[in-house]
Amino acid sequence: MALLVEKTTSGREYKVKDMSQADFGRLELELAEVEMPGLMSCRTEFGPSQPFKGARITGSLHMTIQTAVLIETLTALGAEVRWCSCNIFSTQDHAAAAIARDSAAVFAWKGETLQEYWWCTERALDWGPGGGPDLIVDDGGDATLLIHEGVKAEEIYEKTGAVPDPASTDNAEFQIVLTIIRDGLKSDPKKYHKMKDRLVGVSEETTTGVKRLYQMQINGTLLFPAINVNDSVTKSKFDNLYGCRHSLPDGLMRATDVMIAGKVAVVCGYGDVGKGCAAAMKQAGARVIVTEIDPICALQALMEGLQVLTLEDVVSEADIFVTTTG
Amino acid sequence: MALLVEKTTSGREYKVKDMSQADFGRLELELAEVEMPGLMSCRTEFGPSQPFKGARITGSLHMTIQTAVLIETLTALGAEVRWCSCNIFSTQDHAAAAIARDSAAVFAWKGETLQEYWWCTERALDWGPGGGPDLIVDDGGDATLLIHEGVKAEEIYEKTGAVPDPASTDNAEFQIVLTIIRDGLKSDPKKYHKMKDRLVGVSEETTTGVKRLYQMQINGTLLFPAINVNDSVTKSKFDNLYGCRHSLPDGLMRATDVMIAGKVAVVCGYGDVGKGCAAAMKQAGARVIVTEIDPICALQALMEGLQVLTLEDVVSEADIFVTTTG
Amino acid sequence: MALLVEKTTSGREYKVKDMSQADFGRLELELAEVEMPGLMSCRTEFGPSQPFKGARITGSLHMTIQTAVLIETLTALGAEVRWCSCNIFSTQDHAAAAIARDSAAVFAWKGETLQEYWWCTERALDWGPGGGPDLIVDDGGDATLLIHEGVKAEEIYEKTGAVPDPASTDNAEFQIVLTIIRDGLKSDPKKYHKMKDRLVGVSEETTTGVKRLYQMQINGTLLFPAINVNDSVTKSKFDNLYGCRHSLPDGLMRATDVMIAGKVAVVCGYGDVGKGCAAAMKQAGARVIVTEIDPICALQALMEGLQVLTLEDVVSEADIFVTTTG
Amino acid sequence: MALLVEKTTSGREYKVKDMSQADFGRLELELAEVEMPGLMSCRTEFGPSQPFKGARITGSLHMTIQTAVLIETLTALGAEVRWCSCNIFSTQDHAAAAIARDSAAVFAWKGETLQEYWWCTERALDWGPGGGPDLIVDDGGDATLLIHEGVKAEEIYEKTGAVPDPASTDNAEFQIVLTIIRDGLKSDPKKYHKMKDRLVGVSEETTTGVKRLYQMQINGTLLFPAINVNDSVTKSKFDNLYGCRHSLPDGLMRATDVMIAGKVAVVCGYGDVGKGCAAAMKQAGARVIVTEIDPICALQALMEGLQVLTLEDVVSEADIFVTTTG
Repeated sequence: MALLVEKTTSGREYKVKDMSQADFGRLELELAEVEMPGLMSCRTEFGPSQPFKGARITGSLHMTIQTAVLIETLTALGAEVRWCSCNIFSTQDHAAAAIARDSAAVFAWKGETLQEYWWCTERALDWGPGGGPDLIVDDGGDATLLIHEGVKAEEIYEKTGAVPDPASTDNAEFQIVLTIIRDGLKSDPKKYHKMKDRLVGVSEETTTGVKRLYQMQINGTLLFPAINVNDSVTKSKFDNLYGCRHSLPDGLMRATDVMIAGKVAVVCGYGDVGKGCAAAMKQAGARVIVTEIDPICALQALMEGLQVLTLEDVVSEADIFVTTTG
Repeated sequence: MALLVEKTTSGREYKVKDMSQADFGRLELELAEVEMPGLMSCRTEFGPSQPFKGARITGSLHMTIQTAVLIETLTALGAEVRWCSCNIFSTQDHAAAAIARDSAAVFAWKGETLQEYWWCTERALDWGPGGGPDLIVDDGGDATLLIHEGVKAEEIYEKTGAVPDPASTDNAEFQIVLTIIRDGLKSDPKKYHKMKDRLVGVSEETTTGVKRLYQMQINGTLLFPAINVNDSVTKSKFDNLYGCRHSLPDGLMRATDVMIAGKVAVVCGYGDVGKGCAAAMKQAGARVIVTEIDPICALQALMEGLQVLTLEDVVSEADIFVTTTG
Repeated sequence: MALLVEKTTSGREYKVKDMSQADFGRLELELAEVEMPGLMSCRTEFGPSQPFKGARITGSLHMTIQTAVLIETLTALGAEVRWCSCNIFSTQDHAAAAIARDSAAVFAWKGETLQEYWWCTERALDWGPGGGPDLIVDDGGDATLLIHEGVKAEEIYEKTGAVPDPASTDNAEFQIVLTIIRDGLKSDPKKYHKMKDRLVGVSEETTTGVKRLYQMQINGTLLFPAINVNDSVTKSKFDNLYGCRHSLPDGLMRATDVMIAGKVAVVCGYGDVGKGCAAAMKQAGARVIVTEIDPICALQALMEGLQVLTLEDVVSEADIFVTTTG
Repeated sequence: MALLVEKTTSGREYKVKDMSQADFGRLELELAEVEMPGLMSCRTEFGPSQPFKGARITGSLHMTIQTAVLIETLTALGAEVRWCSCNIFSTQDHAAAAIARDSAAVFAWKGETLQEYWWCTERALDWGPGGGPDLIVDDGGDATLLIHEGVKAEEIYEKTGAVPDPASTDNAEFQIVLTIIRDGLKSDPKKYHKMKDRLVGVSEETTTGVKRLYQMQINGTLLFPAINVNDSVTKSKFDNLYGCRHSLPDGLMRATDVMIAGKVAVVCGYGDVGKGCAAAMKQAGARVIVTEIDPICALQALMEGLQVLTLEDVVSEADIFVTTTG
């Protein structure tokens, strides 16, 4: 796929797999809106006052139907939005098409290469010469990372004239990041500084991303305020528990089309995610075995009637293996 | 306990453990009436027309609070009732006291000897010189057995003058039965014939009792009509399944006061009773293992996520053993 | 799609959607074989003795991956097989392609018109001039129906020379059946008689099909022996209960992508299918309400903690409606 | 019951209901030891080194079989122990008898008056002229309260000569506390100061007791160190959740002997205790309705398929009401 930005008839930029899926995406969006009353209430309550009027919001978060409802809530409250996915496989192309056609600048498709992925991230941050976004909705911290690395490189460049050297790292993905930053330096040696200066803050919703943010805060290298969305109770006790309870059998059934009942399922880890997965497997009629090194969580599994063993003991007899240990 | 019949002030016969528990029995009876709307509706619907007017009903069935509600439904519909238990341990003495005081002739207490048990059964069948009951409510077939054995002995006695010889059997309980019949012959050599002639029929609610009845039907020795209550759907699919699901943890908790959650429970047999027991143990947080020789039932256990093993494989590791194989 | 029979390089007839999906079908077939140990054991145990050697088997049953494992078991035991689906939507095209390419004559694709459906049924029964199949595996009774209607028409034609008149019925589907038979009469006025004469028997696995067979048996119009597969315990207590428990959430999730937890689900009917559906919805976190006119089944729902109401009472508040009443 | 301290043959003080139940208590203690492997491991691991050698421990905690295992673990580790219950109804008299006879000074029986209750508490703290205990195991904070009120009164008495006036309060229970302190002042005006001086600390395991301790810490009036046992994960996530899941149906069945299946149960509050209670009722076959003011907990109930309503909406239709709101 050629990495060229396209434009809607109204002039909004995008790059998606197949714009003809926009109608199908709109249909599923309408279904999803019914399922997301919180966001819809935001539109009703805050739409009239337009609190995001004039705000530029960049998102780096799975470009799915549900995210599409979020995006259109942001635009309903007045924001301008540019979006990319935070995972090369998670984009639902019909969702991307509907949003690209109707609401926001989208750069995302299912099955991106790493090269494409970072090109999309760069596009989502690219608000033109006037600097970057006012807010970032980050999921995994990649948009945040790019700005921090960019600012770091610009400072070195200003002082020494040196540009980042992709060959300086073995990490294939980081080579791509350095290349992007190096190429950016040529056209605008203050690009990421302008972004940083404009940014009001970022929200981050993964454990990994949040850990990195706390580390930067401790090191004094965090460039702008960040909100830890990851540890909110609606994430840990709902997404993790009920989300996994719903999604695990769904995924297994779509991928394999085999009966879960009567199988032996091993769930590695019995934290919130493991609890949801074990509940789902038990309820589908599997016999569930848990592996867990934390004694409290192991005891919880036992009190739920689940067998707790080491992976070595079960690896030869189980049918389904679920890892929830991160 | 001296085996002497006592009489209420109104002249009704009884023999119970402790008449002072009658008030407590009445209190629990009132609670139970709320729980047994079927019987209570019978009282409302059929009480006025008195369909059992003049009928003599003998019951041989656990003398519990719930049976007490049944007895008072029979009397509310016009019947005269005499009752004994069908098990030496199952009588609730406060239930027996309440019924003995208020409603029917009761001969039952918790912890009868076998001697006492059969004396009670004889009393429940003893309606005086005019013959026996019109109907028998039997649970295990002991009242039915006594009449059949009595008639058999009377026929031999009439033909040959011979009386039953308790020493002719090694079975301690059957020795008692023969003794009762022998002693009866002396006072009235047609006692059981009169019972048989008057009897309209018996209802039987155990698998054991029903099997015996079918055998007698095949052999041509069944002396009166019988209703198979055992195989009604409200017995097999409710008593067995939900009754056991309720009673098993109840009994375990009262008897041992130990936590069921986290234990390994083996349920031997996965018929209706086993299904109820396994469900109860699973829901209380035990890990349940089933032993079952029927392949269909074994497969059902598997589809419910239960491990199916042989007893030999689990006898050394399990905490709770439940046998449901009869 | 032009209704033309195609041929494999080995000369076997077929008509499927897309032969290029055969490899994908083979992959899923291999997964499914692991899940169907009963059929695989049949291959091992009976393959060497070839009990179906020379037998012609026609199947009219959902052309899915699982059915494909059945078909290849029949061929492994020596049979020749011709197959169509019993439902215009249920064919998995990759399964049809794999079987058409490798094992048997298949006439089935997802999304047939009624016209196409009956053309496929006719093809599956068409074993050439020598008569029809030895055995029919029927699911819904359509192959059985076609032969019975064909024989009936041939008898009238022989006696009176009259051919069936599609205009004689308002039923669009039956018009197609009559047309097929009428056209068949022209080329061979004994076609269905030859089929009937050769047929050893049919197995039928739906309630509807079985009812029709019993009715024909009573009326004396059943032309060949039939086996009632529908009432086997592995159908009623496994397919209906566990099959539905598995498939209902699977179908809901694929079709709507919405969360089941927290929803109100109404299950109409609480027979074996309803019990499986209610269990699935409850376990997925829905609040389940049951409608049921049979008092025993209604009471079972109650004892499982489910609310039992009339449809009128819940139609305005429920999110998911599941009908299991046939 | 006359409030006189009795003595065992070995001279240890006690006051229990019926010393003849000691053998029965010992039997249940032996059962319970198997269920409490943590405490038993403490005996094995720390028994030889006698870490509590010479320590005086006073307990104010339900005098049950399980507590008895705790007491005998303390003595096995070298402690001297005096015990009272923290609730007038919770003592198991056979447990009290076994401990009084074999292991420690016990002052507790089922059905104490408030007067008797505080006499027992005073006895448990009364280690003779040499001061009080080294450690207190408190459950509800009553032993802690008595010492704090005693110290306060002694200080006033020292400064002003005034003694506490029971008539100064309307609270019947506090009148008793003041009376005890007043009477103590006469015999030893430094009694509670000596206790305070000797005390190493207290462990407290109720929310109520812990709140009071934190308040005293903030006010600067806490006289000795305290350990918050209440908020340990084994209390909140095990006692509250699994303990209640076990105990609620146990209590209901013993108290009412009625079937839980098919009933409507309202659980007020869906915290850890409410979650355990709701799970127990659901698993016993009740239909569960939750009332909850916390939106997160209410949403959790919903995601478990439970109906969430206000108490007003359900008070007229429910059969069982469970309050878990403290």
